[in-house]
Amino acid sequence: MFMTRSEYDRGVNTFSPEGRLFQVEYAIEAIKLGSTAIGIQTSEGVVLAVEKRITSPLIEPSSIEKVFEIDTHVGCAMSGLIADSKTMIDRARVEAQNHWFTFDEKMTVQSITKAVSNLALQFGEEDSEPGAMSRPFGVALLFAGYDEGLGPQLYHLDPSGTYVSCSAKAIGSASEGAQTSLEEQYHKSMTVAEATKSVLGILKQVMEEKLTSTNVEVASVTNDKKFHVFTKEEVENAIKDL
Amino acid sequence: MFMTRSEYDRGVNTFSPEGRLFQVEYAIEAIKLGSTAIGIQTSEGVVLAVEKRITSPLIEPSSIEKVFEIDTHVGCAMSGLIADSKTMIDRARVEAQNHWFTFDEKMTVQSITKAVSNLALQFGEEDSEPGAMSRPFGVALLFAGYDEGLGPQLYHLDPSGTYVSCSAKAIGSASEGAQTSLEEQYHKSMTVAEATKSVLGILKQVMEEKLTSTNVEVASVTNDKKFHVFTKEEVENAIKDL
Amino acid sequence: MFMTRSEYDRGVNTFSPEGRLFQVEYAIEAIKLGSTAIGIQTSEGVVLAVEKRITSPLIEPSSIEKVFEIDTHVGCAMSGLIADSKTMIDRARVEAQNHWFTFDEKMTVQSITKAVSNLALQFGEEDSEPGAMSRPFGVALLFAGYDEGLGPQLYHLDPSGTYVSCSAKAIGSASEGAQTSLEEQYHKSMTVAEATKSVLGILKQVMEEKLTSTNVEVASVTNDKKFHVFTKEEVENAIKDL
Amino acid sequence: MFMTRSEYDRGVNTFSPEGRLFQVEYAIEAIKLGSTAIGIQTSEGVVLAVEKRITSPLIEPSSIEKVFEIDTHVGCAMSGLIADSKTMIDRARVEAQNHWFTFDEKMTVQSITKAVSNLALQFGEEDSEPGAMSRPFGVALLFAGYDEGLGPQLYHLDPSGTYVSCSAKAIGSASEGAQTSLEEQYHKSMTVAEATKSVLGILKQVMEEKLTSTNVEVASVTNDKKFHVFTKEEVENAIKDL
Amino acid sequence: MFMTRSEYDRGVNTFSPEGRLFQVEYAIEAIKLGSTAIGIQTSEGVVLAVEKRITSPLIEPSSIEKVFEIDTHVGCAMSGLIADSKTMIDRARVEAQNHWFTFDEKMTVQSITKAVSNLALQFGEEDSEPGAMSRPFGVALLFAGYDEGLGPQLYHLDPSGTYVSCSAKAIGSASEGAQTSLEEQYHKSMTVAEATKSVLGILKQVMEEKLTSTNVEVASVTNDKKFHVFTKEEVENAIKDL
Amino acid sequence: MFMTRSEYDRGVNTFSPEGRLFQVEYAIEAIKLGSTAIGIQTSEGVVLAVEKRITSPLIEPSSIEKVFEIDTHVGCAMSGLIADSKTMIDRARVEAQNHWFTFDEKMTVQSITKAVSNLALQFGEEDSEPGAMSRPFGVALLFAGYDEGLGPQLYHLDPSGTYVSCSAKAIGSASEGAQTSLEEQYHKSMTVAEATKSVLGILKQVMEEKLTSTNVEVASVTNDKKFHVFTKEEVENAIKDL
Amino acid sequence: MFMTRSEYDRGVNTFSPEGRLFQVEYAIEAIKLGSTAIGIQTSEGVVLAVEKRITSPLIEPSSIEKVFEIDTHVGCAMSGLIADSKTMIDRARVEAQNHWFTFDEKMTVQSITKAVSNLALQFGEEDSEPGAMSRPFGVALLFAGYDEGLGPQLYHLDPSGTYVSCSAKAIGSASEGAQTSLEEQYHKSMTVAEATKSVLGILKQVMEEKLTSTNVEVASVTNDKKFHVFTKEEVENAIKDL
Repeated sequence: MFMTRSEYDRGVNTFSPEGRLFQVEYAIEAIKLGSTAIGIQTSEGVVLAVEKRITSPLIEPSSIEKVFEIDTHVGCAMSGLIADSKTMIDRARVEAQNHWFTFDEKMTVQSITKAVSNLALQFGEEDSEPGAMSRPFGVALLFAGYDEGLGPQLYHLDPSGTYVSCSAKAIGSASEGAQTSLEEQYHKSMTVAEATKSVLGILKQVMEEKLTSTNVEVASVTNDKKFHVFTKEEVENAIKDL
Repeated sequence: MFMTRSEYDRGVNTFSPEGRLFQVEYAIEAIKLGSTAIGIQTSEGVVLAVEKRITSPLIEPSSIEKVFEIDTHVGCAMSGLIADSKTMIDRARVEAQNHWFTFDEKMTVQSITKAVSNLALQFGEEDSEPGAMSRPFGVALLFAGYDEGLGPQLYHLDPSGTYVSCSAKAIGSASEGAQTSLEEQYHKSMTVAEATKSVLGILKQVMEEKLTSTNVEVASVTNDKKFHVFTKEEVENAIKDL
Repeated sequence: MFMTRSEYDRGVNTFSPEGRLFQVEYAIEAIKLGSTAIGIQTSEGVVLAVEKRITSPLIEPSSIEKVFEIDTHVGCAMSGLIADSKTMIDRARVEAQNHWFTFDEKMTVQSITKAVSNLALQFGEEDSEPGAMSRPFGVALLFAGYDEGLGPQLYHLDPSGTYVSCSAKAIGSASEGAQTSLEEQYHKSMTVAEATKSVLGILKQVMEEKLTSTNVEVASVTNDKKFHVFTKEEVENAIKDL
Repeated sequence: MFMTRSEYDRGVNTFSPEGRLFQVEYAIEAIKLGSTAIGIQTSEGVVLAVEKRITSPLIEPSSIEKVFEIDTHVGCAMSGLIADSKTMIDRARVEAQNHWFTFDEKMTVQSITKAVSNLALQFGEEDSEPGAMSRPFGVALLFAGYDEGLGPQLYHLDPSGTYVSCSAKAIGSASEGAQTSLEEQYHKSMTVAEATKSVLGILKQVMEEKLTSTNVEVASVTNDKKFHVFTKEEVENAIKDL
Repeated sequence: MFMTRSEYDRGVNTFSPEGRLFQVEYAIEAIKLGSTAIGIQTSEGVVLAVEKRITSPLIEPSSIEKVFEIDTHVGCAMSGLIADSKTMIDRARVEAQNHWFTFDEKMTVQSITKAVSNLALQFGEEDSEPGAMSRPFGVALLFAGYDEGLGPQLYHLDPSGTYVSCSAKAIGSASEGAQTSLEEQYHKSMTVAEATKSVLGILKQVMEEKLTSTNVEVASVTNDKKFHVFTKEEVENAIKDL
Repeated sequence: MFMTRSEYDRGVNTFSPEGRLFQVEYAIEAIKLGSTAIGIQTSEGVVLAVEKRITSPLIEPSSIEKVFEIDTHVGCAMSGLIADSKTMIDRARVEAQNHWFTFDEKMTVQSITKAVSNLALQFGEEDSEPGAMSRPFGVALLFAGYDEGLGPQLYHLDPSGTYVSCSAKAIGSASEGAQTSLEEQYHKSMTVAEATKSVLGILKQVMEEKLTSTNVEVASVTNDKKFHVFTKEEVENAIKDL
Repeated sequence: MFMTRSEYDRGVNTFSPEGRLFQVEYAIEAIKLGSTAIGIQTSEGVVLAVEKRITSPLIEPSSIEKVFEIDTHVGCAMSGLIADSKTMIDRARVEAQNHWFTFDEKMTVQSITKAVSNLALQFGEEDSEPGAMSRPFGVALLFAGYDEGLGPQLYHLDPSGTYVSCSAKAIGSASEGAQTSLEEQYHKSMTVAEATKSVLGILKQVMEEKLTSTNVEVASVTNDKKFHVFTKEEVENAIKDL
């Protein structure tokens, strides 16, 4: 059976006899090699936490970014190929700015996610937009934001370009175990403080390294509608709170 | 025999010795991996119902869309690759708006279906229209609408670009069993209420999960010529009616 | 021997060692998978009849078209890939209208056939006209019309772009048996009524399903120079006459 | 040895280790599958005769053309792929008209042959003229004409683009036997009447079907400098003369 | 397992079933064939040292460059394919000059590194910027500089386009052993003089040839914000100091 | 070893592991299938003689050309693919005319040879001049001319684009034996008459057919600076002189 | 191991699993099939000597060039594919002239070498400069010149585009033995006369043919800043001096 598969999976945009697109499935595998990221959406706000893999003590942890602000009210966490994520986040930022400039209102988290999805869908096509690639993006993203009128929003975008709104979501190498923990711990009345504890607690469980303020990034957006990446001190305090 | 096939089926637009185009057949297989969608056309109107696969309780069901409004009088249900369906539905919407703007009349369901079919036919061609892809679309669509003078309309479009008008049609992973049930239950004098019961009843039979108001989408168009997607309450009531 | 063949037949436009173009031969095979169509040319006019395959009782038969009007005086029947036929018939219609507009006379059936043949010949070429494809068209067509001064005309066009004028011709899956019957039944002094009986009688013989007014399309053009597709009632009457 | 060959012969324009271009050789094979055509050049004029393969009695023989007028003083007979011949004959006609229009004199047979040869040479090249193909033409042509001052001319053009002037030449499936007969029967003092007898006599020998006025085309050009395709009656008379 | 790998690793931009991009991993292997380069960042400044492989005594050592000035305040050391490095360093220089010209301030080391990373990310894409290649760059770079306000900076860029800030980093064929030594010797309060001793001492350990002033290049940038490549005498003195 | 070779020799412009370009070597093989051509340069002038292969007595020998005038003072003989030679000779003629028109002096034989060589070198390159091909030319040429001030000139150009000046040179299927004979017979004080005898004598030895005035072409250029192709009578006289 | 290699080495610009670019390595093999060239740089000037392979006594030795003047003060010797060297030398000449025209000073030998290196680096890239090829150049060059202020210069450029300054360098089929001899004989205080003796002496040792004034080319550039190719007499005298 494996030999049969190998004949189809190199064509970027070719169906296998079972109707599958293997390159998309392999891109999803790339995420499973990436660092773990977790997000929880509560009625008060959204919290994101991402593992940072520091392979040497001589590396400056702050130069490895896994969480990015997109606009003042929205940011995202990534897992997968760092290089690919840059193109996607640039697109998200440009779209958000254009929207604000054109309509004088903040772009919703869903619209931003959709704009990045549009880019992701165009892999392997000849007349695609600038930024589209000859293969699927090897990146999954968690978008967290606070929309005017809609409140806190958490969206998950995978390499196939599919996006869904989630209450809580884990991506990356330990996503399977983390997602199970999320389903156990998540409840509708969670506060942001509880959600912060939950994401860090789950990361602590699934990470191979000991959780410290240098190998995790935390961010949140609450009803002040500001996406805020935690400072080292804030991360340390949050870890102490566990 | 299988080895022989494998030599032809990767060429997107190449005939096999038996005169077959394998990539189109494989795209049709992709539909068989998709969620089930059912439509019934009655003399009063058309009803659509689609299964939604909610893989985690933490996913927001309303962010998975399987039914789309195209114009006020027409909508569609999809099964297959979500990403591909976006391009097709965008095309349908643009064509419908252009028609209305140019001719000051609503575009018929058949004309909308044909416009999307034209796009689907162009896979693998170099000088195709924007939106066309390097492989067949991995999507089947059920178009439901109410045409001025023609009454309720139900059209089925498959990845080969072929479309037919149907009284009732099921697509997706459980389409075979569902289509058999439809042939048993359908009769010419069905009311929209009966049709709604029928599509939900059949979905209930063929879905692996228990049918609830969160894992199904229902829509209808009746003689008020408005395509209407059911609210959560309306779905719940319809399920209770079973 | 088969292995040798397989090495040549995927190149769309490459000769095999025996000087054959396999993709053209395979496209001709595609016709043999199609529904059967029959045409007879008499001194009074031309009659076309085509089998329609209705795979489910819930399909609306009138939405499956196998016979197309091209201009008031000419139409055609098709067998093979429906999607491919659309491009060819569009070309035929445009050419016929352009001719009439430019020269103020009806285009002859032969000229229309030649125009479609020109399109069919261009497969696999880089600088081909719009509409040409990367593979041969998987369609055979029977053109029927009545030319000013020339009288009734029946032309057969196959996927290689070759066209000939015929007294009677069958294409599609049952074409072999049907052509033998045609050679037995055809005579020069046939009337249109006799020809209509003949084409329906032969279709009745070769079709797997029972011949009804819903699974056959009939059309004729006589000395009133109007291509006319039979109504359901006319088909029913013709079947009764058998 | 065969396996080695198969590795080179699919590259349209690639040398084999022995310095051969296989696609050209295979195109020449395509001619050997075609109908037989014979030409004889005498001091009075040139005669061409071509077999027509009528696969069914219901085909109209006059709609199969194997002999084409190019200009009033020159025409040609073809063997091989009908579709390919159309492009070549169109080119010949356009070149002949352009020459006449530009220089106010008839284009010589050699110049016309050379113009078509130029087109044939360009196969497989990216920046070729319109009309050139991605493979060699699968056609051989016999050009017959009467040049002002030069008298009767017979040229043979093969798929490699090579052309030579001949006293007599046979092409197509039975060309080998026919060429031997030509070498026996041809003499310098032949009249056009003798040449006509000779080409028909040889065709009669080599054709599988019985020679009739419907399965052969005859044409000649004499010192009136008019290329003339025989009418059915003229062909019948010529056959009776045998 | 190896055979499976070989099927994926030639596609420049194709995922393997495990979600890996082999060409990027192979480009990283190219660095392991290159000469060793080491950098240390202290609070006073940054020091770079690179091995030069002089394969013949008749080669002029000064014509082999492994350390390059990019702007007055920043330079870099390279390991891998010399030819590829030229494109990257040209880009770095142009970006630095443009920044200075446009904003009238020195470009930060991080911004320069990011600009080169952007170029490196575009391999294998059709509409990439001028300078991008059809494969990943086979080069790793250590950027060393002194930013206004930020102080000394050391960045490492690898063929995947990923860059991180480091306190100390070794690249090239002996990088593994060298990195271990760096982790042992590096401490936060190092002076530039100590760092110079350290990089040369480690190079001495890992190089196969004896360390001399002709087979090593040393450069530093301190709080005078001048990137300075050591003269032969300065290198000799530094070696004596070991 | 052969299997290894076959993996490299189809890439038109790819080195084999031994640093060879096989397509160029195969093109040189194509010359070895061609007819034999011989040239001798004396202090009085240059003589060329070429075998013509007349495969049928019904072919007009004068329509097979192997010797071509390029300008009044220079011509050439060819061996290999006739079709390819046309492009090269057209280029030579255009260059010679352009030179004469621009500088009002005859182009030297070396410059003409170099111009054709430039064209030959561009095979397989995307942005090549018009006339360049996707494979090497399968032609060798002997250029013979008389330059103002330089006297008689004989140049040999092979498919690799390499050209050298020769005193005497044989190309084509019998070139090996003919070259040995040339090395025996050639001496510096040869007259044109002796050279003519020599080239015809050697051709007579190596040709399979009997040497006659119809299967050989002879040309010379002497101190009247006129390239002259021998008439049938002159060839007959030269053969009698043997 | 060999099978593995063969899978990577045909991709012009693809890394092997070990991080190697095989086409570049094979191009370097092409140099090893070329004739031997040797250069020595002294404080007085630079001497170049190149073997010429005269395969037949009937070839005019002067028409085989292995040494080329680039500007009055600089020239080069080549080994490898003659056709490729023409493009490189043309580029060198144009760059040298442009520099002189633009800056009114002679271009340095290093700058000329770098300009040719830039061209060599672009193989296999789509948007490369005119002159760049789809494969690496199969040529090595020795540039010899005399720069204002810098004195005599000898640069070696190989197919990878890498260039270094050398005191003495041998390239071509016998380069290994010749380089060893150079390392023995070279000393810093060599005069040009001694260097000339040395290069010819080494060539004499390594050449299969006897060294004569027709199978070697010698050139030098001394403090008169004129690149001078030796006349036949000068070469004869130099050989006598051995």
